[in-house]
Amino acid sequence: MCASPESEPQTAAPEWAIAIHGGAGVISKDLPDSVRLDYEASLSAALDAGKTMLADGQASLDVVEAVVRILEEDPRFNAGRGAVYTADGVHELDAAIMDGRDLSCGAVAGVTTVRNPITLARKVMTDTPHVFLIGAGAEAFADQAGVERVPNSFFDTEHRREALQRAKEQEAAGHQASLNSRYGTVGAVALDKAGNLAAATSTGGMTNKRFGRVGDVPVIGAGTYANNATAAISATGTGEEFIRHAVAHQISAQMEFGGKTLAQAAEFVVFHKLKPGDGGIISVSKTGEIAMIFNSEGMFRGAADSKGRFDVAIWE
Amino acid sequence: MCASPESEPQTAAPEWAIAIHGGAGVISKDLPDSVRLDYEASLSAALDAGKTMLADGQASLDVVEAVVRILEEDPRFNAGRGAVYTADGVHELDAAIMDGRDLSCGAVAGVTTVRNPITLARKVMTDTPHVFLIGAGAEAFADQAGVERVPNSFFDTEHRREALQRAKEQEAAGHQASLNSRYGTVGAVALDKAGNLAAATSTGGMTNKRFGRVGDVPVIGAGTYANNATAAISATGTGEEFIRHAVAHQISAQMEFGGKTLAQAAEFVVFHKLKPGDGGIISVSKTGEIAMIFNSEGMFRGAADSKGRFDVAIWE
Repeated sequence: MCASPESEPQTAAPEWAIAIHGGAGVISKDLPDSVRLDYEASLSAALDAGKTMLADGQASLDVVEAVVRILEEDPRFNAGRGAVYTADGVHELDAAIMDGRDLSCGAVAGVTTVRNPITLARKVMTDTPHVFLIGAGAEAFADQAGVERVPNSFFDTEHRREALQRAKEQEAAGHQASLNSRYGTVGAVALDKAGNLAAATSTGGMTNKRFGRVGDVPVIGAGTYANNATAAISATGTGEEFIRHAVAHQISAQMEFGGKTLAQAAEFVVFHKLKPGDGGIISVSKTGEIAMIFNSEGMFRGAADSKGRFDVAIWE
Repeated sequence: MCASPESEPQTAAPEWAIAIHGGAGVISKDLPDSVRLDYEASLSAALDAGKTMLADGQASLDVVEAVVRILEEDPRFNAGRGAVYTADGVHELDAAIMDGRDLSCGAVAGVTTVRNPITLARKVMTDTPHVFLIGAGAEAFADQAGVERVPNSFFDTEHRREALQRAKEQEAAGHQASLNSRYGTVGAVALDKAGNLAAATSTGGMTNKRFGRVGDVPVIGAGTYANNATAAISATGTGEEFIRHAVAHQISAQMEFGGKTLAQAAEFVVFHKLKPGDGGIISVSKTGEIAMIFNSEGMFRGAADSKGRFDVAIWE
């Protein structure tokens, strides 16, 4: 048996662990190599930043916020810059963050001018007695909390504008666009050296969305959950399905009340509660076990831990 | 042993069952008799309407919507007419509904002109592929769905305006108003003769709320959950605590994964996860067991079933 790169016994729990995602859904395996490599480079850069912070002993809460900010700034992913367009041709962003130490959490929905929604969600958690702020009120709070605001056009990208155009053409032709080709999310979960878990998720929602539609991301327990007694979970996929099954909390609850391992709990929800194509989750348990489970064609993801693991992937 | 009023054996499960609430919190036992009797009459009227529908064989989903509409129209309760005021002196309403048959659900948050938010939540569930609509978008959908809109002043009541004034005076004097004296919610859960469960919750939120604050009501899994395999639950209290503990889903999950009865599951969450004063829940299980559990001074509530139970109460 070989020693691991950091010379810990293979059976010991890792000191720290992190998993990230950049969305799940129909991701064609015919993706040109150059595009695939670009995505993998983006995921690797975000994962490396998180790895460095965790190895340095930083708190999982700081790590998941920092990593999600990197993914929000990356125009490849549907969160922050690069967010999809609503039917009205603008961007409406949602985010949530949760601290496994004491179940503190913060979430925002329907913000249009906040550069990094995940940072606003964290300010809701730390600087207010509340958990969930929406719309113009959340933006007024951003000003008070000193969170950077930008014109909505800051989030514009040409490829998302084209996606809206295609969605509108399909709609006009009477075709129902494939739901799971229009979603996307970014997220991070981490266990730090102090044994604390945290989860963070951010999204632009759904291309061509109407009527202030909000998905699972800002719904604590659906797209995001963290509890030091169980695991940290961040989801991506058809938000409505993740809400009705309270996916993130259901994984935690199976561990708490049903004696399941993280992998057993996550597989049960993803393969037996959700429908094929709905999406997936990334998660890390209190013992540093990482589970990245999805029932869609692909999920942009990456994982690293103190035992030397460092990998990014898109398909199975 | 006496026969029950409907001559069923005491041990048989009821054919149908319903529980309702009109909010939890600090409710002084010095309430004048006339006020107490008014509240009890309001609760009895709503409960009686639900009882009549269930005895008539109507679906639990129709019953919980109808009963919550009655409570929304009643100015005594903090939902619909009688909703509390925000810091800006207006009303922002939230509601959610869930169908235990297939986990269908609908929720709205931050609506200001929809007379019966619970009916809008049901339309979100039945007439869109979505679960959760917020703000102006939700109101545009109300127009499309034919759900009645009213001027925001429709929701005005003098006693809530005075409550806002008192909250602002306390704030100006540097006092933190007692959080749980400023909340309130209405809700209903029911099991129908066909064995289907449903839950519905509606609220005006928190007096003097700012920044688009949203509580647990529209967060599926927090304030509202229904699953034919377990129970239907509607919560009321300090919304932030109900979100972080995913209270409604946690009760269902303990039954599903931990083999608990409804009463055991509800008591565990209310007395061991929540803090004293946070509030409570009403619930009915798939076998018609009713649990109404709270850790606050009082909870406006009522329960009825096919075996002749019919009672309303405020304190223990």
